[in-house]
Amino acid sequence: MTKIADSTVRRLSLYLSYLEGVEREGRDTISSAELAGLGGTTSAQVRKDLSLFGSFGKRGLGYSVEELARHLRDILGLERTYRVAVVGAGKLGSALAQYRAFGDRGFAIVSVYDSDPERIGKRWNGLQIKDTALLDEDLRSSGLDIAILTTPPEVAQAEADRLVRGGVKGIMNFTSVRLEVPEHVAVKNVNMALELQALSYALRHAHGGEI
Amino acid sequence: MTKIADSTVRRLSLYLSYLEGVEREGRDTISSAELAGLGGTTSAQVRKDLSLFGSFGKRGLGYSVEELARHLRDILGLERTYRVAVVGAGKLGSALAQYRAFGDRGFAIVSVYDSDPERIGKRWNGLQIKDTALLDEDLRSSGLDIAILTTPPEVAQAEADRLVRGGVKGIMNFTSVRLEVPEHVAVKNVNMALELQALSYALRHAHGGEI
Repeated sequence: MTKIADSTVRRLSLYLSYLEGVEREGRDTISSAELAGLGGTTSAQVRKDLSLFGSFGKRGLGYSVEELARHLRDILGLERTYRVAVVGAGKLGSALAQYRAFGDRGFAIVSVYDSDPERIGKRWNGLQIKDTALLDEDLRSSGLDIAILTTPPEVAQAEADRLVRGGVKGIMNFTSVRLEVPEHVAVKNVNMALELQALSYALRHAHGGEI
Repeated sequence: MTKIADSTVRRLSLYLSYLEGVEREGRDTISSAELAGLGGTTSAQVRKDLSLFGSFGKRGLGYSVEELARHLRDILGLERTYRVAVVGAGKLGSALAQYRAFGDRGFAIVSVYDSDPERIGKRWNGLQIKDTALLDEDLRSSGLDIAILTTPPEVAQAEADRLVRGGVKGIMNFTSVRLEVPEHVAVKNVNMALELQALSYALRHAHGGEI
C-alpha cells in the first residue's frame, strides 16, 4: 500500500471516533452521508477515503458499523497496545502523562523520565518519575514503541538520538526543535503556539469556522 | 484577500519562527532556498506562499529578514496582543495556562476559570483560578479575544455558547466535542489522541519521516 496523506489519516481517525459513538448507541449501519456530516466533508470524500483500503459497504444499505470500525482500527494500527514513555516531566509532560484519552486508545504510558533531581521520584497517578540516565537500560530491557518528547529544547536532539538508538520508532515532538532522525523513524511535531497562530490569523482576517 | 489554506498559514508560521532565529543571529538577508530547508518544502513553494501577500524579495539578493518577518507578523495577526482565557483548570488547562511560548507570541493568558470549588482560588504563576460563574461578567467588563477550552466534554458546548455570547471570536478546543458556533467564530480543534494515531498509523505501515 502506498503512503496516504496525513489529512486522510486524520479523517479516518475522525470517522472511527464517530463510529464508536454510534456503536455505543447500538446501531448496526451508517451511511457515508452521515459519516461525512461529522467533518464538514462530503459523502464522495468518505467513499473515496474508505475505498483506499478495499471495498466495504453495500449500495443503499450503508456500512456495517462494527465491520467498518474494526477495519479502521486495523488500518490505523489501533488493534494493538503501544508502549509509550514521556521524556521531560515539566507541566506539559505531566498533563500528557495523565491524559486519559491516550490509554483509552491503546497508548499505554509506561514511564516518565526527567533529569531534574527535584522531579525524580515524584509520583503521578501511579507513575514514578525516573532518572533519564536509566532510559538506555530501560530501552534495552523492555523497549518502547513511542516517545512523547517534552524536554527543554537544548537537550531535545540528544534525547531523540538516545531514543532512536534504543529502538523507538515514533516520536511525538512537543519541543520547538526540528529533530533529525533516521528515515525509518516517524516524527509528529506538535506546536501549540502554531495552533494558536492559526487562530490569530483567522481573527486578523475575520474568518470563522473550523480551521 | 481570499481565505488561504490552513497548511499555508502553518508554513508561514514556520517561516516566521525561522526568520526570528536568523534575526537574532544578526543576519540581514535570507534566500528562499534556506527558508525552504526548514520545512522540507521547496524554494518554489516558499516564493508561491509569500507571493500571495504581495512581492517581497529581490532576485539574486534574497529577502530582507527584518522586512519579511514584519510582514509575516502582520499577515498572521501577531502585531498585536490577544487576551486569552483558559476555561477548564484541569491538568491540560494548567499546563497550557503556564506555557511560556504563548506569552512570547503575544497571547496573554489573562485568566483561568473552573467550576470545581476545590480548584477555585488556587494560584498558578500569578494567575488565580476564578469561578466560571464570573465569566459572563468578566467578558462584559474586560472582554477576551480567544478562549482555550479544556473542560470536561459534558459542559464544553455550554461554555462555548457563553464565550460566544460574550464576544469571543476564537476558540482553541481541546475537548472531544464538535462545537457548534456561529459562522463568524473560528474554532481550532486540537486532539492529542488524533495526533498519536497519526504515529500509530505510521508505525503500523512502517512509514518514517515527519508526518
